[in-house]
Amino acid sequence: MPQRTVFFVSDGTGITAETFGNSILAQFPAKPRHVRRPFIDSIDKAAEVVREINEVAEREGKRPIVFATLVNTEVRDTLTAEACKGLVMDMFRTFVEPLEEEFGVKSNHRVGRFSDVSKSQEYTERIEAINFSLAHDDGQSSRNLDIADVILVGVSRSGKTPTSLYLAMQHGIKAANYPLIPDDFERGQIPSSLAPYKRKCFGLTIDPARLAQIRHERRPGSRYAALENCRHEVREAEAMMRREGIAWLSSTHKSIEEIATTILRDIQPDRLIY
Amino acid sequence: MPQRTVFFVSDGTGITAETFGNSILAQFPAKPRHVRRPFIDSIDKAAEVVREINEVAEREGKRPIVFATLVNTEVRDTLTAEACKGLVMDMFRTFVEPLEEEFGVKSNHRVGRFSDVSKSQEYTERIEAINFSLAHDDGQSSRNLDIADVILVGVSRSGKTPTSLYLAMQHGIKAANYPLIPDDFERGQIPSSLAPYKRKCFGLTIDPARLAQIRHERRPGSRYAALENCRHEVREAEAMMRREGIAWLSSTHKSIEEIATTILRDIQPDRLIY
Repeated sequence: MPQRTVFFVSDGTGITAETFGNSILAQFPAKPRHVRRPFIDSIDKAAEVVREINEVAEREGKRPIVFATLVNTEVRDTLTAEACKGLVMDMFRTFVEPLEEEFGVKSNHRVGRFSDVSKSQEYTERIEAINFSLAHDDGQSSRNLDIADVILVGVSRSGKTPTSLYLAMQHGIKAANYPLIPDDFERGQIPSSLAPYKRKCFGLTIDPARLAQIRHERRPGSRYAALENCRHEVREAEAMMRREGIAWLSSTHKSIEEIATTILRDIQPDRLIY
Repeated sequence: MPQRTVFFVSDGTGITAETFGNSILAQFPAKPRHVRRPFIDSIDKAAEVVREINEVAEREGKRPIVFATLVNTEVRDTLTAEACKGLVMDMFRTFVEPLEEEFGVKSNHRVGRFSDVSKSQEYTERIEAINFSLAHDDGQSSRNLDIADVILVGVSRSGKTPTSLYLAMQHGIKAANYPLIPDDFERGQIPSSLAPYKRKCFGLTIDPARLAQIRHERRPGSRYAALENCRHEVREAEAMMRREGIAWLSSTHKSIEEIATTILRDIQPDRLIY
């Protein structure tokens, strides 16, 4: 496919436009050029974007694809006017209007997930969750584990840290994480500070060959990274999780989004922020 | 509005369905109950979800709203069949099919952003960015600042840490962050380790009253949290950023998504992952 440009146009951050647009574009082999135009909240700014789209259309000889999340009708009309040479995918008109009919109320045309974060309890809890997850990364602290929503366990470099931070950032989940280390395997028990919270524990495991590869990047040639050692640690960790009745999954081929979704589905924490 | 249930049905994690659905729902005053049904990748599983939707429709006397991202046509047909009593918002059919026509190619019906993370260079870079941002949180390390994409500066509790982690996680940006502390104000200069990288620095400031409130939650009654001290630090930090020619914004009313988007727009780092 020839060069093609995709615009993400939004009156807010454009994150919704981009997430959705990318999931649509992932269905195609093309690797189009991305242009983001956030904070387009006036007719003038929209007209400027239309000029830009038309220049690109002219230069590339192909209609740019435009993913738009514009709440204000006049701003939106500017973008979807015939003068615009892009193929506009208007997410709000397509879905908001049928919902107005279904709900029997007009939409309130609010932009973004948080109108003013300083007044949002939900937002405050999300920031607190990030701070909690940071303070409880890699077994740094056993304090306040009683208020953790989930405690991830697994061998070093199995994906616990990014998953914990993602759970906190995206879902406001207080996620602690604890490494399982050779000492634990010798003792044959999970770290004693976790014992009262087994119900909240979730395990991550990983294919030993992949683990060795990741560890070699960090500490090339070390015993820590040796395949034989990785095999041993993973085997011991899996045996321990099985013995303790801790649910677990393999992170080998999964993104942090997929891991997090599975954990949420299985653990169903009470305080889940949507 | 009476109780209403919203389903997010996806063959992957459902993150796209949820992000998009929530941005649509945010336009309405309702607070519907959320039900997630990820990993619906077979006709049987879809039929089970339809049964659930119909039970809810019966119980609540209102059509459930269903946001769906289902790539497989047969699975999708099961959900959108007449037997389903939900109002189905089918994001793929609505937008993927017009694009097939525009591109002149069939979509490859791939699910999710990452098909196999262990083979994805983009995913690896994202995890590296998270590790970098963690290692360079709160001025912990001056090593490798040359490879940072952005360095956030600002007084303690101005929002640097969550913003750095978000930039790393969402955009694969290596974001370091450095606190501006009273020592820096006395010396009248940014930390010396940052001097060579001023071009990559971006400042966060915050309303002193809000800062005092946040700090009081951490250390109630401390001098650190006193309004007078917060006023002083913020004034000094803003003066310093102005003097050093560092672009900055106020995080007071902004979510980390909004802050991150503004930074990306202004700094335009080279290695931006989409």
